[in-house]
Amino acid sequence: MLSRYLPILEWGRTYNRSILTSDLVAAVIVTIMLIPQSLAYALLAGLPPVVGLYASILPLVLYAIFGTSRTLAVGPVAVISLMTASAAGAVAAQGTAEYLEAAITLAMLSGIMLAILGFLRAGFLANLLSHPVISGFITASGILIATSQLKHILGITAGGDNWPEMLGSIAASIGETNPWTLAIGIPATLFLFWVRKGGKPALVAMGLGPRVADMTAKAGPVAAVVLTILAVRALDLGERGVKIVGAIPQGLPPFAVPSTDLSLIEQLWVPALLISIIGFVESVSVAQTLAAKRRQRISPDQELVGLGAANIASAFSGGYPVTGGFARSAVNFDAGAETPAAGAFTAVGIALATLFLTPLLFSLPIATLAATIIVAVLSLVDLKTPGQLWRYSKADFAAHVATIAITLLAGVELGVITGVAVGLLLYLYRASRPHAAIVGRVPGTEHFRNVERHEVFTVPHVLSIRIDESLTYLNARWLEEYVLERVAERPELRHVILMCSAVNEIDASGLESLEAINHRLGDGGIGMHLSEVKGPVMDRLKRTHFLEELNGKIFLSQERAFGELSRDNGEPAVPHDHYHARGMI
Amino acid sequence: MLSRYLPILEWGRTYNRSILTSDLVAAVIVTIMLIPQSLAYALLAGLPPVVGLYASILPLVLYAIFGTSRTLAVGPVAVISLMTASAAGAVAAQGTAEYLEAAITLAMLSGIMLAILGFLRAGFLANLLSHPVISGFITASGILIATSQLKHILGITAGGDNWPEMLGSIAASIGETNPWTLAIGIPATLFLFWVRKGGKPALVAMGLGPRVADMTAKAGPVAAVVLTILAVRALDLGERGVKIVGAIPQGLPPFAVPSTDLSLIEQLWVPALLISIIGFVESVSVAQTLAAKRRQRISPDQELVGLGAANIASAFSGGYPVTGGFARSAVNFDAGAETPAAGAFTAVGIALATLFLTPLLFSLPIATLAATIIVAVLSLVDLKTPGQLWRYSKADFAAHVATIAITLLAGVELGVITGVAVGLLLYLYRASRPHAAIVGRVPGTEHFRNVERHEVFTVPHVLSIRIDESLTYLNARWLEEYVLERVAERPELRHVILMCSAVNEIDASGLESLEAINHRLGDGGIGMHLSEVKGPVMDRLKRTHFLEELNGKIFLSQERAFGELSRDNGEPAVPHDHYHARGMI
Repeated sequence: MLSRYLPILEWGRTYNRSILTSDLVAAVIVTIMLIPQSLAYALLAGLPPVVGLYASILPLVLYAIFGTSRTLAVGPVAVISLMTASAAGAVAAQGTAEYLEAAITLAMLSGIMLAILGFLRAGFLANLLSHPVISGFITASGILIATSQLKHILGITAGGDNWPEMLGSIAASIGETNPWTLAIGIPATLFLFWVRKGGKPALVAMGLGPRVADMTAKAGPVAAVVLTILAVRALDLGERGVKIVGAIPQGLPPFAVPSTDLSLIEQLWVPALLISIIGFVESVSVAQTLAAKRRQRISPDQELVGLGAANIASAFSGGYPVTGGFARSAVNFDAGAETPAAGAFTAVGIALATLFLTPLLFSLPIATLAATIIVAVLSLVDLKTPGQLWRYSKADFAAHVATIAITLLAGVELGVITGVAVGLLLYLYRASRPHAAIVGRVPGTEHFRNVERHEVFTVPHVLSIRIDESLTYLNARWLEEYVLERVAERPELRHVILMCSAVNEIDASGLESLEAINHRLGDGGIGMHLSEVKGPVMDRLKRTHFLEELNGKIFLSQERAFGELSRDNGEPAVPHDHYHARGMI
Repeated sequence: MLSRYLPILEWGRTYNRSILTSDLVAAVIVTIMLIPQSLAYALLAGLPPVVGLYASILPLVLYAIFGTSRTLAVGPVAVISLMTASAAGAVAAQGTAEYLEAAITLAMLSGIMLAILGFLRAGFLANLLSHPVISGFITASGILIATSQLKHILGITAGGDNWPEMLGSIAASIGETNPWTLAIGIPATLFLFWVRKGGKPALVAMGLGPRVADMTAKAGPVAAVVLTILAVRALDLGERGVKIVGAIPQGLPPFAVPSTDLSLIEQLWVPALLISIIGFVESVSVAQTLAAKRRQRISPDQELVGLGAANIASAFSGGYPVTGGFARSAVNFDAGAETPAAGAFTAVGIALATLFLTPLLFSLPIATLAATIIVAVLSLVDLKTPGQLWRYSKADFAAHVATIAITLLAGVELGVITGVAVGLLLYLYRASRPHAAIVGRVPGTEHFRNVERHEVFTVPHVLSIRIDESLTYLNARWLEEYVLERVAERPELRHVILMCSAVNEIDASGLESLEAINHRLGDGGIGMHLSEVKGPVMDRLKRTHFLEELNGKIFLSQERAFGELSRDNGEPAVPHDHYHARGMI
């Protein structure tokens, strides 16, 4: 029981030296990868670079204690950084203490929400984000993020809250482009693009083993960082208008107290909720994919607790919202991490970097960080999905495209909300018009099939309707209309059989509609019968007055119902028979 | 086509003298009933009584043109009046011009929303209000309304935005009770309670025919009005602190211009939407019930247009939101109304009353109107439903009780929203954990049944899973977890068959989960097969790469799938066979 909430108790028990070695190796590699990423994503979030490092220390330790994935690497990620910038930017200007306070408060709120959802076992809420909505959101976020970083490559000042504004702002000041910044930014971007695909083969060609080559190529951003720092120092580019990171405070993360200002919380709770859900969905997808590769399991509800703890820790140590990242988790996995301890060791690595490495980063050009971000996020942009969705499902296409369009034009928050709303509306629309079929007997068998698709046997005074969904409030109104319309078309009708083989549930609204149908059919002298009612459904019906009021019988099989009622000669049924048949169930 | 949007073109064509007579008789009876009701509901809405009359003229004419119910009687109703008071009270004080303007704007916004929903054929949105939520809302509204009218019976001043506040406020000033007002209010209330049930038998005992007695008893409120006016005049009660209606402006409704103030619209659009949906649901339920009795049909989407037109007309003639009322529609039906023309004639009756009758109402005590309201709404309070729901469905019970509690404690708007949200959350929760079963063959048959409920035949290396729901984004994540967990439990497994006989749809998220399962099973050397895929589902799957990538076959029947795979001796399947089997579909 306790180890359900503290997974560390489980893997910690079998921890040994060989696992320690694997975890340590993975931690070193992830640390090297995470340092430039943390700085870059803090930049994207509009925060001082050091905040990215703070967000990569304590949260990793907390996730190691509470998380269920053995290989997930937690920390700042691109999409969440963009959402943080959007939410904090709505309450304060970048660079102010209020802006940082908003970011810390977002981490706090998001952490609390995730933890509460975890304790409520409410992970199912993530289902509201369908695949098309998530992929649309990620594509649009990737485009927004890459566009927002262009100014750093050009060395200009630009802004904008949505894509057209961003493009307009860049176009307006493109004349002020700093050639030295461009001379850093373009080669860095091209190098990083190349190293993603071409790095490993090139290193293999140079004689490295494929695994070492792969890991080394993953450290491409570190090479870009080192080379551009050297270039800035050698050519004194800081004096020529190339923006650099500058002094980063040395030392461990401060103890921060998140704001308890209610008006700030009121402004931030909606974005915090969206950050929580997007972060959770992203993280769980990564964790599930990696767990399945090693036949391990994660618990989505406990993941909420783990990510909640990580975000609360981030808030108290001056960081901003974090979640499990795809690229770094894959590196952690490939590097051989076996337990969450690898994450804790990575935290130690980042802490050491914060203590000793930051002076070396003084001359790091912002353009290099922007190049890192652009290359990382453009791989998220997926232009094939819209076409595939269009061919497969117009409803999914609509949700996907609406998410992309609103995210680009009105920002990340409204984009997510629109995607969820469009998906839900289309779902409710379809759920309100479920599938049903008039069925007849396939000659020579006991099977009943759709009269429109098969050659089947029917009789004019019996109508058999197969209902292909559970009867819930979303389709209760439809059921009444559907049955009564079919009945209105057939004046010779004496019996209606509702074949309930696919009805897994009848909620109170569905029951009320059945009662209304029974009542109206009874007024017209038509018997209402049910066949193939499932056991649990029947158990619940027995607790109501419906069976007593039913103007007909309940049959174990459609075959028996049709057989008996099709022989009905028009005289009223014998009451004894009626109760007898019902008693069988 | 035109008559779909203008139903008057259909029934107008066959209009004749005999129908005219029926409609005229019904109109006279409904007019007599509607005059005190209109005044009372305007009082409940916090508006001058004459506004109730205005809202009962033009809207009826417009509904007669655009509505599809032959017998629905439109006008001010109790619940919508309460919602109007709540929404207008949030932006202005009762008695001010701004308050009236807010009420008119609510009618305008609600009318526009209803009409738009009608043109979009979006009547399905009303499904979001389940029966338990509607009945909870109506019960709580009835309690709130009756409580809000107590002060008029007592002749005191009291307020409060929710039930505890209302009760507290009444308790605080109960010492100031005006005995003369009480002497009017209590007998009026008791008389009206008695006349509802006892009026008809008493009149029959006095020698009237049952139908005439029924109609006369329905005019009970008119008797109360006349008697209390006479009492006020005779005893000069207006001078003794009994509040009376006073001067009502004589004349036809004014031409009002609804506000175009954007900040007002921003404050009112949410309540206007709720008023629209609640009003629509109430009206459609009444219209459907009455239509079914005469084997007529209504069109819910066109009803939206009809109610939208009625509300827009109400706004332009100085009225407030209206909808189809249950009691008056039943009277209209029973009185023999045959077409919507009866509604138009009622409008003429109310217009005549506004022109000539209002001076007679000068001495009408407010307490009489309050008694009318209390007696009308207490019949809406239904205390049996919670117990029935508790026995039948805990989820429906939860939605019902949450709606009652939040409506009483936090008001009508939050009450409705809570009911919808709780219902939807519980639905999504269940939808995210659909039903599925591991099945085996019933010996000697071709039927496959749940292994936990039946004695069936299975083999260890084949796992047959019957999925009992469509695969949508709400359960896509569950599907992956469910299948992979079942597989993880069985190391000897070589084949998984997903039996899709109940799968009516696979959306893009469901497809992606199938692809992920296929991929992971493939990694483990396990074949993934589908059986009994429905035609439309198969057609869509063919438009994707899924069938090419499928690590197994598609079988027409579960019997064939199980038969072939259970004979598998462990050698890899022959590719030719594989494509051949798939080609059959």
